[in-house]
Amino acid sequence: MNATIKRESSQRLSRLQQAIRELQADACLISTSVNQFYLLGFIFDGYIFVQPDGDPVLFVKRPSGITGDHVSYIRKPEQLPDFLRQRKLALPGRVMVERDALPYSAVARLQTALGMPELMDASGEMRRIRSVKSEYELEQMRECANIHAAVYQQIPHIYRDGMTDIEFQIELEREMRLAGSSGIFRTFGENMDIFMGSILTGDNAQSASPFDFALGGQGLSPLLPIGANGTKLIPGTTLMVDMAGNYRPWMSDMTRTFAIGTVPDIAHKAHQVSIDICKAIAATGQSGASCADIYLLAEEMARKNGLAGCFMGTKQQAKFVGHGVGLEINEPPVLAPRSKEILETGMAIAVEPKFVLPGIGAVGIENSYIVRENGLEKITCCEEKMVALS
Amino acid sequence: MNATIKRESSQRLSRLQQAIRELQADACLISTSVNQFYLLGFIFDGYIFVQPDGDPVLFVKRPSGITGDHVSYIRKPEQLPDFLRQRKLALPGRVMVERDALPYSAVARLQTALGMPELMDASGEMRRIRSVKSEYELEQMRECANIHAAVYQQIPHIYRDGMTDIEFQIELEREMRLAGSSGIFRTFGENMDIFMGSILTGDNAQSASPFDFALGGQGLSPLLPIGANGTKLIPGTTLMVDMAGNYRPWMSDMTRTFAIGTVPDIAHKAHQVSIDICKAIAATGQSGASCADIYLLAEEMARKNGLAGCFMGTKQQAKFVGHGVGLEINEPPVLAPRSKEILETGMAIAVEPKFVLPGIGAVGIENSYIVRENGLEKITCCEEKMVALS
Repeated sequence: MNATIKRESSQRLSRLQQAIRELQADACLISTSVNQFYLLGFIFDGYIFVQPDGDPVLFVKRPSGITGDHVSYIRKPEQLPDFLRQRKLALPGRVMVERDALPYSAVARLQTALGMPELMDASGEMRRIRSVKSEYELEQMRECANIHAAVYQQIPHIYRDGMTDIEFQIELEREMRLAGSSGIFRTFGENMDIFMGSILTGDNAQSASPFDFALGGQGLSPLLPIGANGTKLIPGTTLMVDMAGNYRPWMSDMTRTFAIGTVPDIAHKAHQVSIDICKAIAATGQSGASCADIYLLAEEMARKNGLAGCFMGTKQQAKFVGHGVGLEINEPPVLAPRSKEILETGMAIAVEPKFVLPGIGAVGIENSYIVRENGLEKITCCEEKMVALS
Repeated sequence: MNATIKRESSQRLSRLQQAIRELQADACLISTSVNQFYLLGFIFDGYIFVQPDGDPVLFVKRPSGITGDHVSYIRKPEQLPDFLRQRKLALPGRVMVERDALPYSAVARLQTALGMPELMDASGEMRRIRSVKSEYELEQMRECANIHAAVYQQIPHIYRDGMTDIEFQIELEREMRLAGSSGIFRTFGENMDIFMGSILTGDNAQSASPFDFALGGQGLSPLLPIGANGTKLIPGTTLMVDMAGNYRPWMSDMTRTFAIGTVPDIAHKAHQVSIDICKAIAATGQSGASCADIYLLAEEMARKNGLAGCFMGTKQQAKFVGHGVGLEINEPPVLAPRSKEILETGMAIAVEPKFVLPGIGAVGIENSYIVRENGLEKITCCEEKMVALS
């Protein structure tokens, strides 16, 4: 394992162990791939058993071939007590588990296997810990954002007259994959299904979706009602591109809007308001800023410009203007009216003030930023104006 | 809603209501997208409340715009008791929930909201119900398999000398998307992460993976250790293609193997054993056949041909030779040595006897079949011999 990963891993583990001690838990069990990767730099089917102090123990079901004194192979969770006993470790009475991510039946089985300890939450703690990034992680995000920007620069070359939104998306997906996109769009939560990102044109941007993204779209199938729906890209409408920035495990999030031919003035005006909101947030959002205040600033600017009715949608309006980003596309904090969260140095956030204009489509931008002591550092550096495609 | 979907929906609901009555449950709450789509033909963020008799009630959080007497909009599960009371419906004492798919915290919150009813399992019941398909569903699978086969026929045209496995995969992904692939690879369970399918060449086929698929592969990232890893496609090795058949909500599963230039005789021999195993299973697998017996037949044929050591992997060997397929790629039944399941008319299964040959790569085929009274109907009709790429 390379020295950087080892050092990172050790620092992350320390932060989790501090949380375990503060919560007076006896142990924490980690089995989701995102959190395993965060703590170890690799993933497996099984559990990382973390105690308040000392090295973690790995209880591995698969793959074969993981070696070390701290590794035990198991077939099922019911073997955990025996293996803990062999290692002279006490059965924990209070255990943190990833209860927001693991299925009910998996947690219930684990609890029974461990002799019914008190269950505590590991999901929220891990998300809180992951929300403040190390310099290594932030550098990964900058690298990712640079590739993200280079891929978006291909967009004018991909566009062809008469294309549908999905035909455009397929060619962009190919560029993304060639640039190293993992394909997988890592999200948190139950209602976040999407494939590689969202392309919205015309009135499809008004379609309400069951998912918890900023905007919707009808999609191509009733089983995946989000994004492109086969609409032709026609002059006078806009094309909003919000595709995944998954070129590194730590991701970037970026939206740009394009004009198909000439679009009405209102589209340019609303788009500029989005740019202005991002600028205003970048100037005031800094370590210590309130996430609710940031949302309210955006909402107020939308209202003053007469755009409240189309801010973050029309028929269905998302009640946030941004969110943390990292190993998952939606991490803490959330920039929402009732958020109690405060920006901290080292957080990474995506800000996405968007407007949906009936008869035209969605406009606006999204940038990813790193929270610094004295402001936000923009990492998604790519033309923000509405570029015309023809 | 079209008449076919309405009739299908009503039949599926009846089968669930029969299960609710047999289990003496008071109600069943369905909130995963696959099961919502199965019961209604569309999905939403919220709950389908199904009672032993009568029409279901939809408690919807999102999207806006779902109308009807049977629809109530809610903000959170804590409102369910009030809304049930308004509809003069009793609070259920025994409730079936999708406990294998919903997060622990979501189920726990729901249980508290409903006054702590006894929780019963809906996940397994729904998977059992879905495993026997209607003629409409089977026709969807045949259509899907035909497109799947047409896409695989492009493979010799996609191949170029000097390509890596991932470069090949990216071009194939594009063909899949142009042919209508939804992109999303729907799986069941905690350890089934994958992007659009698996491409394996050379010794990457030996890499053990944490996931519960037939074969592994190192992948391109430690966060997604499965499939292609950037290996060059070189003469004398094989290329195994097992990409998603997701051209309809009801899917097909199919693997074909290609020879890069000329491959050693053992590769052709082992590949032919895979074809022979599929033929033997197709001849004996029929309604009433034991899934364990089918596995044992495959394993015995592998052993007799001296291929036991490379059957379903080398360092890590999968302990199944096939599985049901439908809205998810891994449905009941499973063709495994200790399976107690019996084939039923209308089930759809994928059979994938595969061999991994060190220094060469993976060989073998996978077909999808429909279970009939007197045998298996093959739906993945596409050249099975190892076609050479050059």
